[in-house]
Amino acid sequence: MKKYLFLVFAAFIAVGVSAQELANFSRGAQQIVSPEVKGDSVTFRLSANYATVVNLYGNWMANYSDFVPLKKGNDGIWEVTIAAPEPEIYTYNFIVDGVSVNDPRNYMVQRDGTRYLNMLFVPGERSANYNETAHRGTVSYRWYDSSILGSNRRLTVYTPYGYETSKQKYPVLYLLHGGGGDEEAWSSMGRAAQILDNLIEQGKAVPMIVVMPNGNPGQQAATTMGLPVKTFDPQDPQNQNLYVKSLVNEIIPFIEKEYRAIPKKASRAISGLSMGGGHTFAASTLFPNTFDYILPLSSGARESDTLDAQLLGIKKAGYKLYWIGCGTSDFAYAGSQVLDQALTRNGMEHTFYKSTGGHEWKNWRLYLNTFAQLLFK
Amino acid sequence: MKKYLFLVFAAFIAVGVSAQELANFSRGAQQIVSPEVKGDSVTFRLSANYATVVNLYGNWMANYSDFVPLKKGNDGIWEVTIAAPEPEIYTYNFIVDGVSVNDPRNYMVQRDGTRYLNMLFVPGERSANYNETAHRGTVSYRWYDSSILGSNRRLTVYTPYGYETSKQKYPVLYLLHGGGGDEEAWSSMGRAAQILDNLIEQGKAVPMIVVMPNGNPGQQAATTMGLPVKTFDPQDPQNQNLYVKSLVNEIIPFIEKEYRAIPKKASRAISGLSMGGGHTFAASTLFPNTFDYILPLSSGARESDTLDAQLLGIKKAGYKLYWIGCGTSDFAYAGSQVLDQALTRNGMEHTFYKSTGGHEWKNWRLYLNTFAQLLFK
Repeated sequence: MKKYLFLVFAAFIAVGVSAQELANFSRGAQQIVSPEVKGDSVTFRLSANYATVVNLYGNWMANYSDFVPLKKGNDGIWEVTIAAPEPEIYTYNFIVDGVSVNDPRNYMVQRDGTRYLNMLFVPGERSANYNETAHRGTVSYRWYDSSILGSNRRLTVYTPYGYETSKQKYPVLYLLHGGGGDEEAWSSMGRAAQILDNLIEQGKAVPMIVVMPNGNPGQQAATTMGLPVKTFDPQDPQNQNLYVKSLVNEIIPFIEKEYRAIPKKASRAISGLSMGGGHTFAASTLFPNTFDYILPLSSGARESDTLDAQLLGIKKAGYKLYWIGCGTSDFAYAGSQVLDQALTRNGMEHTFYKSTGGHEWKNWRLYLNTFAQLLFK
Repeated sequence: MKKYLFLVFAAFIAVGVSAQELANFSRGAQQIVSPEVKGDSVTFRLSANYATVVNLYGNWMANYSDFVPLKKGNDGIWEVTIAAPEPEIYTYNFIVDGVSVNDPRNYMVQRDGTRYLNMLFVPGERSANYNETAHRGTVSYRWYDSSILGSNRRLTVYTPYGYETSKQKYPVLYLLHGGGGDEEAWSSMGRAAQILDNLIEQGKAVPMIVVMPNGNPGQQAATTMGLPVKTFDPQDPQNQNLYVKSLVNEIIPFIEKEYRAIPKKASRAISGLSMGGGHTFAASTLFPNTFDYILPLSSGARESDTLDAQLLGIKKAGYKLYWIGCGTSDFAYAGSQVLDQALTRNGMEHTFYKSTGGHEWKNWRLYLNTFAQLLFK
């Protein structure tokens, strides 16, 4: 940091540096506030004296084409004020002369796959549990050996406040990400640690361990770590459900050996979004004696000759909660309806939790914040 | 991710969306490779059809004014090829029409304070230990209660491969960041976990726990977490060394209670860079019976009436290693020389490890990779 400040200073006094190159390192840039949430509005600002067009795109906009233009002031600061979207966490970025740019004045950043996007936090009742509370659990990055997938693989483990000094054993939620995600998706975009900390502190959820593995079988870890990726031929029947087999036959034993986890069906829950909902369906049907709580999100099922038999396997093994979460404008809504109807026609008690909105993190945070209160009770 | 792809697709077919806004979402942008390290050269590329000036700044350049211009091709892809800097990890960004932009094709990103910068990894002997090895330890984010600082505070803990299943107790290195840094600086920019994993696997370092606290007394955690910051009046003598007191009186007992740490002077090391070197000096002189290994980096001391007495306190208490690391062009080099001379005139055995270069992470990684081999032996 000191070096950086020194270099910026050096650059200002250096001869031959065009002012254009330094625009966003200027003092003005250091003083502006962005984003600024005030009452019902948010103001975004960017220092970009030499830019021609600056737009804002945020994921609260219905379509990418809804981006909002910023207006340039005399001081080279571009600015726009919009009505604040409803309380939630959103992501946004600027588009400067056709290039996506993060907001240099906002250091709250989330990673979605390989994209780094600024966060906009709009406070309110709905988003209250997404912030830090007083009693905070531990988030650890662990590695487990998978002989099924032939690699050493990273997973994220949340242990609740007090885990390290208690002698207690805990139930475990296996929480799976979607396509394009990785083992950091739920702890970063999903605010899983903050949600659990809040619910546990409020006495609304029982203290539990949350395990968030990487569901891309070829990856050892998030691609951001630069580790080599394997490919598995999807046509090869040997490769079917490899990750789900590793989850049940390798990750669960690993967690139950290395953590104080209760090694019982009644103390295991599985949930996942989108691709992770597919993993949830596959794990619960292939291994019906493993989980008492089954919660596919923004996913569902397709009608097939085997669907009823798969679900009846779960019915026979017994379960405590089957909970489907989906937004009514999610492209996975039809699949969720198929699953809902199949459970109904097979006489299986379940909940179909419908929210507004689509295939997006604001729904997945809402679902976790809702269903975590139902687990292990 | 799916939603994003859908939105991009929708945007392409939407009427009224100017092409300029979509430049870096185009197919071309998805196919280009950047950065591309090939033999002794690196090529950087950016899709920015509507930009006027695109420059590259990397921290291997001696001065900020050494930035390199990219040249625009017919396809709207800007490109430049430069000689690869010596093997190391560097950071860089583009400057598009005066605005800093991350490389959208490079998902390796490091955070330095509040800035997110792309990483350039140049492989070679010097940087070999900065990559993942086969046996990987765990990195955890913990919270401890500080009554001295009046807040619940985050720290990063590295436990070596096998910690969770062994019954062994381990020595502990307390590893402190500099001004502008936080509890993630050493694990992110410093590659502390990878360096320890490699050295331990090679049998060059003994398995140890590494604790990386937040050295900014007003912060609960990295500012990127958005938690409120306290201010302590620096003029108030009550506020002197508050963080160092919390480190010795709160963090060490916390670690020795919650981890299998050997609670002995012979099994404690302290090192820190820049401001963290000052903390190292203060902790070792205020609490001379606490650490047997004292390693200030890019820091040093000022001549004062009390300097000799402070060092003689350490001499009297006894120590196993006093190791100063500094680059010969570091602005802290003079201070390191003062400390070196003071240790010599007080008859205290020590090492003054001098490297080329300045106040920068390439040196701090090198120092950790070097001195970790000397600890607890």
